[in-house]
Amino acid sequence: MSPVAPGQSDSVGIVRVPFSELVERLTGALRKLGFAPENAALCARLFAETTRDGVYSHGVRRFSRFAAMVRSGLVRPNAVPVRSAQCGALERWDGQFGPGNLNAWRSMGRAITLARESGIGCVALANTNHWMRGGAYGWQAAEAGVIGLCWTNTMPNLPPWGGTTPTVGNNPLVLAVPRAGGPVVLDIAMSQFSYGALESYRDRGELLPVVGGFDSVGELTRDPAAIEAAQRPLPIGFWKGSGLAFVLDVIGAALAGGQATCEIAQDPLRETGLTQVFIAMGGAGAFGRNPDEIAAAAIQFLQSSQPAAEGARIRYPGEQTLRIREENLARGVPVDRAIWEEIRTPISP
Amino acid sequence: MSPVAPGQSDSVGIVRVPFSELVERLTGALRKLGFAPENAALCARLFAETTRDGVYSHGVRRFSRFAAMVRSGLVRPNAVPVRSAQCGALERWDGQFGPGNLNAWRSMGRAITLARESGIGCVALANTNHWMRGGAYGWQAAEAGVIGLCWTNTMPNLPPWGGTTPTVGNNPLVLAVPRAGGPVVLDIAMSQFSYGALESYRDRGELLPVVGGFDSVGELTRDPAAIEAAQRPLPIGFWKGSGLAFVLDVIGAALAGGQATCEIAQDPLRETGLTQVFIAMGGAGAFGRNPDEIAAAAIQFLQSSQPAAEGARIRYPGEQTLRIREENLARGVPVDRAIWEEIRTPISP
Repeated sequence: MSPVAPGQSDSVGIVRVPFSELVERLTGALRKLGFAPENAALCARLFAETTRDGVYSHGVRRFSRFAAMVRSGLVRPNAVPVRSAQCGALERWDGQFGPGNLNAWRSMGRAITLARESGIGCVALANTNHWMRGGAYGWQAAEAGVIGLCWTNTMPNLPPWGGTTPTVGNNPLVLAVPRAGGPVVLDIAMSQFSYGALESYRDRGELLPVVGGFDSVGELTRDPAAIEAAQRPLPIGFWKGSGLAFVLDVIGAALAGGQATCEIAQDPLRETGLTQVFIAMGGAGAFGRNPDEIAAAAIQFLQSSQPAAEGARIRYPGEQTLRIREENLARGVPVDRAIWEEIRTPISP
Repeated sequence: MSPVAPGQSDSVGIVRVPFSELVERLTGALRKLGFAPENAALCARLFAETTRDGVYSHGVRRFSRFAAMVRSGLVRPNAVPVRSAQCGALERWDGQFGPGNLNAWRSMGRAITLARESGIGCVALANTNHWMRGGAYGWQAAEAGVIGLCWTNTMPNLPPWGGTTPTVGNNPLVLAVPRAGGPVVLDIAMSQFSYGALESYRDRGELLPVVGGFDSVGELTRDPAAIEAAQRPLPIGFWKGSGLAFVLDVIGAALAGGQATCEIAQDPLRETGLTQVFIAMGGAGAFGRNPDEIAAAAIQFLQSSQPAAEGARIRYPGEQTLRIREENLARGVPVDRAIWEEIRTPISP
C-alpha cells in the first residue's frame, strides 16, 4: 500500500482517484442533474464513501443508473422527507420520492435525535428510493454513539423458499454498534449472493464458495451462471431468510404506510416507492454497559474459535472496512475508467 | 382429526392430554417446586401452549431440565424483574434470575405498554434465564395489536463462520405482525438446525433437507450424525447468520447491561444470566396502514410464486401454528408418556 499519483491505474479499466477529487466531481455531476448545492454535496459524499469503503457494487458504479432515474423523474433531486405523523418516539415520514441515500441519511439522523430524547427512536419512511449502501446508515448511528437498526424493502427479486419466481425482496438489514476502534456494522441482504456478486464470480470463472441458488432443474448449485439463468438465487438460511425478508417488508409497510414489495414495480429502473425503517437506541443514558468494552470482549472471544483453515482469521462484521478505507484513501479510490470519464464530463439533463 | 379420550395414545410413547388437564398438572408440578400460585399458573400455561402449538422441542419436553434448574437454584421460581433504569421509551430491567418464560412474558408486556404510550417501546432485560419458545412473545405482541421484535442470547453453542469451536450463540430472533386471521410470527435461531432437530433426523434415519453443518473433515454435509459428531452446526446464511448472531448479542448486552455470550457458562444445565431485548411498535396510532390488510396482500403475493414442486404450498411464517393448535386442542396435546408420568407425580424439591 503506497500513495499513487492521482489518476494512476492499478488494473485494466480501473483508475485510482483521490477521495476529495471524487467527491468534487460527483458533486459537479449532481449539480448538473439539478441538485441544490447542499443536496449535491451530501449525495456525492455518500456515493464516494461507499466506494472508498470497498462496497463497490453500491457506490460510484451505481451512479449511472441513479442519474438515469433522476433524468426519468423517478428520483426527485431536491425533494426532502416530510413528517406525516408523530407518535411519541416513533415518527412516520414521507420521502417524497427524493434521492434514496439522502432520505435514508436524514431519516437515521432523525431517529438518532429521537433516541437521544427517548432512549429509542424510530422513523418509518414511505415513498423513498434505493438507499444504495445500507451500511452507511449503520456507520452514521454508530459514529453518533448509538445503536442503529434499519432495513429497506425492494422490488420482488428473490423467490421465496418453495417457489421459483420472485415474490419477496432481498430486503437488506443493517445493525450497528458504536466502538472506538471502529464500529461493528452488519449489512446483509436476504439473498445469499446478489446478482452483482453472481456476475463477478462468473466473470472470474469461479464457483461460489457455498451453494447460492438453484439451477434450471431445481438443484442447489455453486455455479453462478446456472443460478443467473434460472433466476433463482437462494435466501439466506433457506426458509429462514425467506421468512425474514417477508416479515421485514410487512412491518415496514404497516409502520410507514408505504408500499410493500408486492406493490413495487419489478424493474430496476422503475424500482421506486420503497419503504424503510430506521431505529436508533442508546441515547439518554440508555446503555447499561459501555458498548465499546462489550464489543471488545465479544470480538476477542469470537476470534478465539479454532480456525477452520490454518492461519485463517475469523472476522467480526465491519472489520474489513477500516483497512480498505485506509488503503483507498492512501492509494486513491478505485473507479471504473468508463464511469470516471462519465462523471468528469456529465451528460446534461 | 377427531376428539379422543383423555390419555389415549396415538403412537408409541406419546399420550394425548386435554390442554386444560396439561395446564392443571403442570401448575401442580410447579407449585411443588415452590412457585407461587400466580407464577405457577402462567408458567404452566406457557409450557403447555408451546406444546399445543407444535413447538415440541421447547415445551413440555423441556420441563425436566427446567425443574432441575429450579432445584439447583439457578432459576428462582418467584423472582420478578426489577426496573434498573428508565430512559424514555427504553427501559432496563434486571430479571433477578427468575423463570425465563415469566420474565420474557412480563418484559414484552412492559414493552407493549411503552409502545401504547410512545409508539415504540423497548425493554432490555439482564440476568434472566432461557425463555423457552421465543415465538410466544411474538404472539403476545401480535395479539395485543402491535408489532413485536425480540431476541435472546444463549451460551456459546455455534461455531462462527470460519471457526470450528462455538464462540457465538444461536440467539433466536422473533418478529411478529398482528393479523386478524392469525398473526405473522417468525421465530428463528441463528443455527440452520438445532441439536434437537439434528437428533430427530438421525433418529428417523433421514438426511437433512439441506446442508446443516460440517463433518469432522470440514466438509458441508446433510448427515445429522456427522454434524453432531463434529459439533459444527451451520449458521444460517453461512457468514451472514454468524455475523447476525454476534451483533444481536453485543446490542443486547450493551442495552441491558447484561452478560454477553462470551460470559455465559457453556453447559445447558448451567446456562443462566442471559440477556434479552423486547421491542414493541405500533401503539399510539403508529400504524400508517392497517397491518391486517398489508399482511393479507403480502401473503397472497408471496404464495403466487410458482411452486418448486407441483402442488407444493408456499407458507408464510406462523402459518402452520393455528392448524396444529386446532388439531391438538381437538385430539389432546401430544406429550411423551415418560414426561407425562413425571408431571403427574412430580418429585418433591
